[in-house]
Amino acid sequence: MNPNQEHDMTNFTKRDLLAPSGFPELSVAESVAFRDVIGIIQHEYELAGYTPLITSLVERPIILAAKSGGEISTQIYGLRLLNPSAEGDDSKDLALRFDHTVPLARFVASHVHELQFPFRRYAIGSSFRGERPKDGRYREFTQADIDIIGHETLDLLHEAEMVAVIVRVFNRLKIGNFTIRIGHRKVLQGLLEAAGLHTEAAQTAALGEIDRLEKIGTNAVRANLTNLGISPDAAEQLLETLMHSDLSKISSTLAREGTLLAEGLAELQQVLEGVTSYGIDPSRYRVDLTIARGLAYYTGTVYETRLDDHPALGSIASGGRYENLASVFTDKKLPGVGISIGVTRLLKRLIQAGLYPAERKTVARVLVTRSDDSLEARRAALKVSALLRDNHIATETYLEPAKLGKQIKSADVRGFQTILVVHGTTEMDNQLTLRTMSSGDEHVIALEDLISKVAATQG
Amino acid sequence: MNPNQEHDMTNFTKRDLLAPSGFPELSVAESVAFRDVIGIIQHEYELAGYTPLITSLVERPIILAAKSGGEISTQIYGLRLLNPSAEGDDSKDLALRFDHTVPLARFVASHVHELQFPFRRYAIGSSFRGERPKDGRYREFTQADIDIIGHETLDLLHEAEMVAVIVRVFNRLKIGNFTIRIGHRKVLQGLLEAAGLHTEAAQTAALGEIDRLEKIGTNAVRANLTNLGISPDAAEQLLETLMHSDLSKISSTLAREGTLLAEGLAELQQVLEGVTSYGIDPSRYRVDLTIARGLAYYTGTVYETRLDDHPALGSIASGGRYENLASVFTDKKLPGVGISIGVTRLLKRLIQAGLYPAERKTVARVLVTRSDDSLEARRAALKVSALLRDNHIATETYLEPAKLGKQIKSADVRGFQTILVVHGTTEMDNQLTLRTMSSGDEHVIALEDLISKVAATQG
Repeated sequence: MNPNQEHDMTNFTKRDLLAPSGFPELSVAESVAFRDVIGIIQHEYELAGYTPLITSLVERPIILAAKSGGEISTQIYGLRLLNPSAEGDDSKDLALRFDHTVPLARFVASHVHELQFPFRRYAIGSSFRGERPKDGRYREFTQADIDIIGHETLDLLHEAEMVAVIVRVFNRLKIGNFTIRIGHRKVLQGLLEAAGLHTEAAQTAALGEIDRLEKIGTNAVRANLTNLGISPDAAEQLLETLMHSDLSKISSTLAREGTLLAEGLAELQQVLEGVTSYGIDPSRYRVDLTIARGLAYYTGTVYETRLDDHPALGSIASGGRYENLASVFTDKKLPGVGISIGVTRLLKRLIQAGLYPAERKTVARVLVTRSDDSLEARRAALKVSALLRDNHIATETYLEPAKLGKQIKSADVRGFQTILVVHGTTEMDNQLTLRTMSSGDEHVIALEDLISKVAATQG
Repeated sequence: MNPNQEHDMTNFTKRDLLAPSGFPELSVAESVAFRDVIGIIQHEYELAGYTPLITSLVERPIILAAKSGGEISTQIYGLRLLNPSAEGDDSKDLALRFDHTVPLARFVASHVHELQFPFRRYAIGSSFRGERPKDGRYREFTQADIDIIGHETLDLLHEAEMVAVIVRVFNRLKIGNFTIRIGHRKVLQGLLEAAGLHTEAAQTAALGEIDRLEKIGTNAVRANLTNLGISPDAAEQLLETLMHSDLSKISSTLAREGTLLAEGLAELQQVLEGVTSYGIDPSRYRVDLTIARGLAYYTGTVYETRLDDHPALGSIASGGRYENLASVFTDKKLPGVGISIGVTRLLKRLIQAGLYPAERKTVARVLVTRSDDSLEARRAALKVSALLRDNHIATETYLEPAKLGKQIKSADVRGFQTILVVHGTTEMDNQLTLRTMSSGDEHVIALEDLISKVAATQG
């Protein structure tokens, strides 16, 4: 059967009813997992003192164009009215954001006189890029960002705090051990200068090679670096330094006072001192000087985060320090630091790899069922449900009349671990049974014990 | 000075930096309020057993067109690549959703064999309509919806549950007394039939008149109804019944067995019986048979909710029962019931009316400041902040070196009620001061008392 022709007595094919290609289509269980992950990230961002900032998904094309370069500029979605009426159609001046940074830059530039600096905000929501769908890339994706924006200055402690927040988020997510790799743009650029590369073009080319270390290996990169004009000895020393990323082994001759390298090393040491003060488990981060992440944009520490046992997932939280958030929009100097978690892609990959459960099809803790459809049972089911909710226990009530077996099966399929069975009797003492799904154990409970008994069950 | 020419040494005007006309631009304090309101609604939806369903903001135009009629069909935003490359641009098949119902209908029709029914989901997020911006209407707006979808059947208790959820949400939001008006489509249509109107056209015209009761008054409506062919006596009786909405006074002659009116009255009585079983405060709802809400779509109870002291805000939560969610997408019969809260518009109006505070510019509970920039103070500030976060106390750390007065002012401006001052001394006993912002009271506290002392402060 041609799936494009299979239809359900309607004019729509199965394909018509799927989300468009490249746009995420989450199952119920995946939606629950997504909600859990977003909830954890939001909670940790708020615990760390970040404020929500809600901006529209729609921005002006001139704003987006001003901060998009290269590939992204070909991926911006504009809006158009499908059935434009003659007058007042200004949709040509509307487009969808492709990240959270551009709206932040516009907002801060626009409201710079009303904001308190350092300004810390989080943003969790969709962005859009018209990419060819492949490699798990989505055209709509949820990013969860934090940024701190300073006015003129921004202390290095803010760079340390990013590490603390990443650690808290991923500890809470419980997706296995992870390591934050901390690089530094000034150190890296300083090392390239020390190796004899002084032009931006040469440095950019060298960074391209360093980026390929994992892919093509040390020998090939060393050869390519010498082709760029670095002496064999300097190339050897550079790679040695990058691979080991041991700051204490960087020679004081290279890092002599006044060099960019010395400045970068001093800054990085101060950031690491801050990270230590946060009491962060040292196995959760390490210096990795090979991390570059867009040399043009970042100007201090840069971060990438990988799962220790699943490096193929790539970086799950990235970011860094930048010297000027909004130079195209304002002449105020607004240095910042931020990180971003690509939630849609991360979650899909975690679920595929079996690292995150997507089994529960409910966020409720208990399902209230009834063993008969008598008026007494109906009334008691509603009353019991209201009581549970009043006590902040998320409760679904099975309101449709159905055999108890069918209700229990529905609880089982959707991952409920606890159900209550309400019986249609006027003897209140015999009206409630608590059933544990895993064991099938049932206990008659008194109404006055309801909350404590349910609270004592497994979430 | 022409505001379009005022700029900041950049090529962007002040107007360029604002969100496009009709798209919401929230301040930091409004963003905090928005986050609070969304959090309360989401929490109550989950307490009531609704499951999150995440669908893309982007749908196929054919899907949206199939479920949009009249005005909305001229308001749908399609996508287009701003700089389309030659190949693979399929953006003509992409458009933005205008509500949560169409994506739900598509999703349920597409996944009908995998879902457990009754299927209950909530959806909180943006939708888009290319309306002329006026009357507080937004082109992007956040709606918070719940729906329960049955397969073939859906018990009337689900209609009672909607009332229970609305009451819980607005009790929690604390925006004053409110009343849910409960109407019933079958009762209303039955009354029109009893008054002698049997064609759909005549009924629709009569409903148009009934909708204008508040605007033009009883006398004018009575005259217009008689012009539609209702006898003066019947028109008088109809208006009497509608205005008082006292079900017990509807004559058994009109509501004789087998009539739509009798069927509707029986259903409405059963819904009200369910509402009573939930233990809902009777002052929170009343029957109002004048509520119509799109006769073509709804088929049972319909709901509108108004603030008792601010009727001009209009309905703040509306919805009803429908017999078929997705008849254009599937031949499965999927009856449902749902309500929707228009959060963006509601919040903006509440803030304008002074009914909802939008003053706090933070969600953190405490700001950690330091009285000097010594290494000891820096270290202690980070350590104290980490400890507070470990104990789930949302904490912002003032990391930028600044005079204590400036730090305290920042706390004040942003609505912090409690700050900690860390002093750079090696005597741990003297290191921490807790300051209450409203009184200016300060107390030295020991590190081991930190959590209990902060927890005891006002949130």
